[in-house]
Amino acid sequence: MTKLLRVNLTNLTAVFSDTPENYAGLGGRGLTSLVVSQEVKATCTPLGPHNKLVFAPGLLGGTNCANANRISVGCKSPLTGGIKEANSGGQAGGYLAKMGIHAIILEGQAPEGKWYQLEVDQESAKLVPATVAGLNNYDAVAKLVEQYGPKNAYVTIGRAGELKLSAASIAFTDRELRPTRHAGRGGVGAVMGSKGLKAIIINPGDAKGVPLKDKEAFSEAAKRFAKALSTHPVTSQGLTLYGTAVLVNILHEAGGLPTFNFSQGRFDGHEDVSGETLNRLTTERGGEGQVSHGCMTGCIMRCSGIFPDKNGKFMGKWPEYETLWAFGPNSGINDIEMIVRYDKICDDVGVDTIDVGAALAVLMEAGVLKFGDAEGALKLMEEISQGTALGRVLGSGANLAGRVYGVRRVPQVKGQSLPAYDPRAVKGQGVTYATTPMGADHTAGYAVTANILSVGGTVDPLSPDGQIELSRNLQIATAAVDTCGLCLFVAFAVLDIPDALVAIVDMLNARHGLTLTLDDVPKVGKLVLDTEIGFNQRAGITSAQDRLPDFFLDEPFPPHNKVFDISDEALDSTLKW
Amino acid sequence: MTKLLRVNLTNLTAVFSDTPENYAGLGGRGLTSLVVSQEVKATCTPLGPHNKLVFAPGLLGGTNCANANRISVGCKSPLTGGIKEANSGGQAGGYLAKMGIHAIILEGQAPEGKWYQLEVDQESAKLVPATVAGLNNYDAVAKLVEQYGPKNAYVTIGRAGELKLSAASIAFTDRELRPTRHAGRGGVGAVMGSKGLKAIIINPGDAKGVPLKDKEAFSEAAKRFAKALSTHPVTSQGLTLYGTAVLVNILHEAGGLPTFNFSQGRFDGHEDVSGETLNRLTTERGGEGQVSHGCMTGCIMRCSGIFPDKNGKFMGKWPEYETLWAFGPNSGINDIEMIVRYDKICDDVGVDTIDVGAALAVLMEAGVLKFGDAEGALKLMEEISQGTALGRVLGSGANLAGRVYGVRRVPQVKGQSLPAYDPRAVKGQGVTYATTPMGADHTAGYAVTANILSVGGTVDPLSPDGQIELSRNLQIATAAVDTCGLCLFVAFAVLDIPDALVAIVDMLNARHGLTLTLDDVPKVGKLVLDTEIGFNQRAGITSAQDRLPDFFLDEPFPPHNKVFDISDEALDSTLKW
Repeated sequence: MTKLLRVNLTNLTAVFSDTPENYAGLGGRGLTSLVVSQEVKATCTPLGPHNKLVFAPGLLGGTNCANANRISVGCKSPLTGGIKEANSGGQAGGYLAKMGIHAIILEGQAPEGKWYQLEVDQESAKLVPATVAGLNNYDAVAKLVEQYGPKNAYVTIGRAGELKLSAASIAFTDRELRPTRHAGRGGVGAVMGSKGLKAIIINPGDAKGVPLKDKEAFSEAAKRFAKALSTHPVTSQGLTLYGTAVLVNILHEAGGLPTFNFSQGRFDGHEDVSGETLNRLTTERGGEGQVSHGCMTGCIMRCSGIFPDKNGKFMGKWPEYETLWAFGPNSGINDIEMIVRYDKICDDVGVDTIDVGAALAVLMEAGVLKFGDAEGALKLMEEISQGTALGRVLGSGANLAGRVYGVRRVPQVKGQSLPAYDPRAVKGQGVTYATTPMGADHTAGYAVTANILSVGGTVDPLSPDGQIELSRNLQIATAAVDTCGLCLFVAFAVLDIPDALVAIVDMLNARHGLTLTLDDVPKVGKLVLDTEIGFNQRAGITSAQDRLPDFFLDEPFPPHNKVFDISDEALDSTLKW
Repeated sequence: MTKLLRVNLTNLTAVFSDTPENYAGLGGRGLTSLVVSQEVKATCTPLGPHNKLVFAPGLLGGTNCANANRISVGCKSPLTGGIKEANSGGQAGGYLAKMGIHAIILEGQAPEGKWYQLEVDQESAKLVPATVAGLNNYDAVAKLVEQYGPKNAYVTIGRAGELKLSAASIAFTDRELRPTRHAGRGGVGAVMGSKGLKAIIINPGDAKGVPLKDKEAFSEAAKRFAKALSTHPVTSQGLTLYGTAVLVNILHEAGGLPTFNFSQGRFDGHEDVSGETLNRLTTERGGEGQVSHGCMTGCIMRCSGIFPDKNGKFMGKWPEYETLWAFGPNSGINDIEMIVRYDKICDDVGVDTIDVGAALAVLMEAGVLKFGDAEGALKLMEEISQGTALGRVLGSGANLAGRVYGVRRVPQVKGQSLPAYDPRAVKGQGVTYATTPMGADHTAGYAVTANILSVGGTVDPLSPDGQIELSRNLQIATAAVDTCGLCLFVAFAVLDIPDALVAIVDMLNARHGLTLTLDDVPKVGKLVLDTEIGFNQRAGITSAQDRLPDFFLDEPFPPHNKVFDISDEALDSTLKW
């Protein structure tokens, strides 16, 4: 029997209970969204005591299924005002699953200025006064490791979460006990901060793994699944050698790389900030640098990488594609070492690199600093932790930065900034940005697959035709993937190798003693999306918010000079079934 | 025949046309809301070229009806994301009406950094490069008066409007050519700034007044109306002697004066910032000070007042009650001269005193400065014009300030800050704040009348009973009053003296050749509200936004220790008929 851990920051209690029946069949995003939908009043103040913050490993978490140890974090978002699920790699998801903890649900709110940390092991959980309040993530984790030892997973917020900034993230330690993995989007770190919880210490002890209803069947399916991942060129070569940054040159080539705050689709300095450059510098410098690094136990794609400085010392993790894009082309900066530093600051202070990078470009558009001003950007990034007004604005993300600075061209939907694919040149992404209940989010329905990579078919990225169906199918599939705790990148293999999805279903059945078929996968995805859309409707988010800002409809986007020309009616059909 | 003036800032055109039939029967708020509803796509970017800004005098504007020369300003609000009407005194409304200009509709958008001013006389209108860009309102108006002379009305934005801050107002000159009257709420000044329009110069020339279908009947009704106003104690004594600040002591006594960011309902220093103190100091100091000053031609209530410094020189206008409240009790400041200075800064830089004052208290709650720190507040106020990050945050109003500073207790509805009456102690106001399509707005349905002043009956302010009906009736009546161009304060007389409303209807009939009856008044009000609610629904604002923040439901409010206890279902019935 799995169990829930309910932690109340008002009463300072931490209580285990058996998982109730209505939550039992779900994990990951499916579970966090259901709990938020069932237990949180949709109109509540996001930073108030009535919001809840839910952590849940996925349905395949803790097994030896490849890439299944993601952790989902859910709440009402202070950034979007709607439901939010952000998921992360790192060690916490796998540990919780092995410990039989179905979810941790944070409730209530400590008095302003009081900070706690939550100690969790297999048998017990308790809140104790925080020992690391005021520290950013690297120092906080280092001190917690001193205090509690190296065998735990650590979940922390940095200063941004303490300041309750709308782009604050929650950090999860990787296998090297570094806070490099983040539930980044939607301000989940601000919600953790609002509760008064600075850290969670997850001690798996001797937890041996989750029970399997049919070990042999599971093992056989897991092997087939791993084989698919190690066969597909994206999951076995592209991501492995160049990280997600493999996309920089690809999107530049496609003319869909938003540059200078979404003003054009190609960036002269793209080579300088590409995955190829990450790979080359890391290989040349050696030392602690590492190409093909896995961010969590069980990862066989190993896209995360470690970037060494000129002396071979750890300088930061490889920035993700979206991070390189946000601080690179979109801000006019082509200095990859500076971007590694910005990324490290984001990991440390605990903010979403996408929303903060997009905010930086919006501030550049406002004239606060010039596009390409890498030193100015560094100073500004350092202000987040200092809590200056400008630092807070930056750490609040692009939408708030745009509002405070009176900027018209703010790339956001539902208050969340658009990521690294221009919706005019990758129109399937535009549909996803507009319609996902999460606010603009590339992962919610990653149409780059068929639009750009010819994965799972081909849909012309510049034409409006076929984008609605593409985004719909991907959004449904993604909700299911996120419920399993699988890394989204398994989708590359799943979309091209039919047996990969069969293997996932076989694993779910073997793990939980179910009799799912392939047809059940979209049913789960739709159920999750319906739950999320229902919450958003109760929160006052309607189809009127399923729109891109005017400038994407008005301004032709070089080099293809297209506008976003998918009608409101078509957008409104995306998540209807 | 009245005419519309359409001004396009993209094409730099200004064109008169006959008023089309569907706009002909309306004025003021009824007209601005109809134009916005008909011509502005509800999902457009508020600071983009697709928004429009509409100025319209009321149906009784330009006549010798007392207090009928208000001007309405409408647009999609950058503060609330919904429809906005803010109205103002000053000379512009009466002048436009006399010139036969039914409305000015601003469209399009000048290129970033280009500033224009609009010259309007009876026969012509044109856009010319602005001569006063970069100046705040007092300097801008002084320079415009030098350029164009003293016989015009001037409509300007200060630096806040140029910076497109969400709390930016539009200033209208009073009879002394001072920019003391403002369409304050909802960021209408930011919309004017986004168009690239710095000023409007309205030259009435020899415009003699509006045509009356039945002069005698009008004159007779106007006399009866004036008599009602000069008979009712509020409109002939309370407001006249003490300004709207007459309410400070009254609300303190009632325990409904929000103090220290809505933490308690009484303020020890209330006497120091009261209307009685304004009156006493003004009388004692003499000089340019003036008790009982009218803000526009035709005003017989004369509530505006001029505050003299110790040497008898003009220091600022009498702050309104809501201004005194926002910078006084709600910020813990009891220094009336300092509040006059803050008010003058607001008039000069061009911001809403309510939202900026409420933002100041939110920043105090966040620890940026201490409650009661009058000198710190002054420095902060001066930062708005400087455009510092903190100044911009302050000038963006309470909601954005709260979001940037991670504050849980932010008094706002639909992004607009609550004014000076706590919804737990004046529950009819709470219903109005929650449900008006304008965002929290006291004027939209001023239940203080029956809740506190025993005007128009008596409804216990602390009980939930009767508040829905009270707010509904007042919201309907107010929409009609705002359509006539009448100062809202006529409502005090109208609510207690039955003939006052008859006189208004008689004047409307005599002015326009209509055959309205008393029953038509609520019909007009409902039509206006339905128009506004329809726009908001298309903009994605639902009943989920018709809610007060959680803390009003959670925290008992001293001294009465009540919470806001009107159900969501009841709130949702308010504007249904």
